[in-house]
Amino acid sequence: MSNKKTLTPGDAFFLLIESDKTPSQIGVLARVKLPKGKDKTFIVEMIEGFRKYQPTAEPYNLKLAKRSPTSPMYSWEKVDNVDIDYHLRHSALPQPGGERELAVLISRLHSIPLDHGRPMWELHVIEGLEDDCFAIYAKMHHALIDGVAGSRLMAHWAQQTEPDVAPDFLPFWAKPLPQKNHSTKANSENQSSNKEGFVSQCTAAFKSVAIVLQAVWKSIRGQCNKNSIGLVAPYSAPNSILNVAIGPQRRVSTVEFSTDRLLAIGKQHGGTLNDVVMAICGGALRRYLSELDELPETSLIAQVPVSFRPKDEVGGGNAIGALLASLGTDEEDTLARFNKVIASMSAGKALLSGMNAKQITTYSALMTLPFVIGQMTKIGNRRRNPMYNVVISNVPGPRETRYLNGAELFSVHPVSFVMQGQALNITLYTYADKITFVFTACRESLSSVQHLVGHTTDALDDLERALGIKP
Amino acid sequence: MSNKKTLTPGDAFFLLIESDKTPSQIGVLARVKLPKGKDKTFIVEMIEGFRKYQPTAEPYNLKLAKRSPTSPMYSWEKVDNVDIDYHLRHSALPQPGGERELAVLISRLHSIPLDHGRPMWELHVIEGLEDDCFAIYAKMHHALIDGVAGSRLMAHWAQQTEPDVAPDFLPFWAKPLPQKNHSTKANSENQSSNKEGFVSQCTAAFKSVAIVLQAVWKSIRGQCNKNSIGLVAPYSAPNSILNVAIGPQRRVSTVEFSTDRLLAIGKQHGGTLNDVVMAICGGALRRYLSELDELPETSLIAQVPVSFRPKDEVGGGNAIGALLASLGTDEEDTLARFNKVIASMSAGKALLSGMNAKQITTYSALMTLPFVIGQMTKIGNRRRNPMYNVVISNVPGPRETRYLNGAELFSVHPVSFVMQGQALNITLYTYADKITFVFTACRESLSSVQHLVGHTTDALDDLERALGIKP
Repeated sequence: MSNKKTLTPGDAFFLLIESDKTPSQIGVLARVKLPKGKDKTFIVEMIEGFRKYQPTAEPYNLKLAKRSPTSPMYSWEKVDNVDIDYHLRHSALPQPGGERELAVLISRLHSIPLDHGRPMWELHVIEGLEDDCFAIYAKMHHALIDGVAGSRLMAHWAQQTEPDVAPDFLPFWAKPLPQKNHSTKANSENQSSNKEGFVSQCTAAFKSVAIVLQAVWKSIRGQCNKNSIGLVAPYSAPNSILNVAIGPQRRVSTVEFSTDRLLAIGKQHGGTLNDVVMAICGGALRRYLSELDELPETSLIAQVPVSFRPKDEVGGGNAIGALLASLGTDEEDTLARFNKVIASMSAGKALLSGMNAKQITTYSALMTLPFVIGQMTKIGNRRRNPMYNVVISNVPGPRETRYLNGAELFSVHPVSFVMQGQALNITLYTYADKITFVFTACRESLSSVQHLVGHTTDALDDLERALGIKP
Repeated sequence: MSNKKTLTPGDAFFLLIESDKTPSQIGVLARVKLPKGKDKTFIVEMIEGFRKYQPTAEPYNLKLAKRSPTSPMYSWEKVDNVDIDYHLRHSALPQPGGERELAVLISRLHSIPLDHGRPMWELHVIEGLEDDCFAIYAKMHHALIDGVAGSRLMAHWAQQTEPDVAPDFLPFWAKPLPQKNHSTKANSENQSSNKEGFVSQCTAAFKSVAIVLQAVWKSIRGQCNKNSIGLVAPYSAPNSILNVAIGPQRRVSTVEFSTDRLLAIGKQHGGTLNDVVMAICGGALRRYLSELDELPETSLIAQVPVSFRPKDEVGGGNAIGALLASLGTDEEDTLARFNKVIASMSAGKALLSGMNAKQITTYSALMTLPFVIGQMTKIGNRRRNPMYNVVISNVPGPRETRYLNGAELFSVHPVSFVMQGQALNITLYTYADKITFVFTACRESLSSVQHLVGHTTDALDDLERALGIKP
């Protein structure tokens, strides 16, 4: 009796599409403050405490089983004796230990592929940050931990809402991760070892992306042809330097603001938090591309995952869909850009609201498919107009301050991944009273992409000035 | 007119044999003391100084040209604008900043493959070492910089013999590396783009390893059959856990001694420094393998590169050859082991002395070939008795204390690489009055290989006690 477990098509997908240049790995980073009265020996003691725990919980004790011509399916197998010193890593920032040094280290770590011969996760505890802080960076393979669970790993781990130092605070790998059950697909070796199985694993993986592609295509074209104000038709995105073949190195940069600043803008002008985020991204990208003399004549188009209620959903549940929206980068005037974004987001949401749950899934898959094909063929979608220019996703985190073994989480955010033809990913994360913009980018193809940090700050200032919030 | 330069067969060889699990990369590490009166801002200022220099000297500005079906040769092309922030890296050790933390970091860094899309070298300046020290670790691809030049890079760079802080101390990439001229083989695109060229590049690469294999084989067998005392015949090495398939992670550990301690042993008992080194390695490996209950019944055999004068060399020049020698690991008694090593080393050198230069080259190639075949087929030589169990090479460094921009080099040594079927490499480096044992090992296949550090210390103590040097 084998203890192998076949990967779900959705998980196998992230192994099928990855390459040396595009490892399918995600991360989560937290800046943490030493508890009052503790010095940095607290960090060493915490690490030594973690080291005592073998990862006995799934998925942290699963590694990819060896494949062979007679056993080509991707499957997990349990590791009884994990080399914990490999996965748990004590590191340090060089002086002065500021945001810049942290960004440089995280960019390096996020570029290094996970070892596929071991459970595909790492935890880095990084000392040497300014102001008595340290950092926690967890890296994991997207096939092992899905994006939503991954980005919430830190919030799930640091559940304390009071600064209590626990003598036996558990590392995250000591308890199972919710939202994903790797055991449900347990198969015997025989069941999972045939070639037909592998073909069906691949087929199902692609089907999970593009279920019944043709079904909704016409209806969407029809909607678009109605000339709804602001509605973005597929393939109307311009060519841009964001949509090129990418290299293996990443540059991760972040900037955080008080969420209230963004909410005040939405309240003043009318618009959701997401609308304000999109307008800021549009302003920042316009500045960045102008600086490089690479601003397209027509506006950049973002793909935005949104959650909403489908028209056939009577139980009150929400669904996740993806819409296309203009970033208004063709508008020089700040408010004209903001208005364009709002109109486009509204039209996109209206389109989704008119669909039933199945249509939404298919439409969203349609938004993703060309990009998947580009990833598989390693050429991206740079040879023709891309479906969209950049993914911008907004992940809500906890609203209250959290503590990790008594140490306050000052900031926390996910780190995403990029693919062929998509050299930049923008992820937003709200935590406590802050919102963080996380730019995960290809270092080779996007020159000085860390300048987006300054441009984002400027774009927020522009909006506040245009609305008279700031003189 | 293209500026591509075809790699020599010897250099291309290191690209042909490498794999995800066995990158052909070497390193050099120095522990450096801050100059008197300087604090750690000295490190930042030095790095900022280095950052100003573009690598305009070969080989530091060369990257691999893209290959294609119509242009399959490995060739170098010049990079005009090197992303220096990528290659020059400021890092730090976590507390307490001791030998253990340094070994952990170097092991991690040495496991990460170099980016083949850029010039294949990195310089890491690592702060946070105890006793006001910092470290310099340079990593480079063996195709870019040969082993001898690589291991001497630090001595070549840090040429000061007095502690003078220079305001414009140059980074090593600002001046060409001696001993290797990448320009001599410049070819036009047409010359280097045909498939025949690639085949001949491969063929020549293998020929450079096994020139006229058969020619000397019989004479060697003949010599061995004479039952020379101590002479090791090819393929008499036992199977051992050192000779298995390896994984991608490395563990680098080092231990250093006063060279005088080893010389005193050789003087007392009769024997060269190399003989004493071999006896210590034999003692340490016997302890390590016994601890794991993996000690073979017959002695481990080492392959030892040696330099000597061939019999047909009238000009007084030296040649480098490789001999096989017993490590005496089957002998429990320390002096019996030492005597076995001495007899074996002498017999090996006598065999080489009886050959002319061409025979030596061929014999040495013969010592290497099975291991190359194992590397190419990714199975190592574990299916039958290996040609030898471990490579032990002794690299002489400078005898006087050196300074890098006024900072004293406390210790310096190369970091080597391992291959399929050869999970451990031992390199010795003598610098000033110290000798360092460097163990580069596969982390996956050799459990607790860092224990060799303690075993080496014990093996040296054993010899001193057996000879009455130490009570």
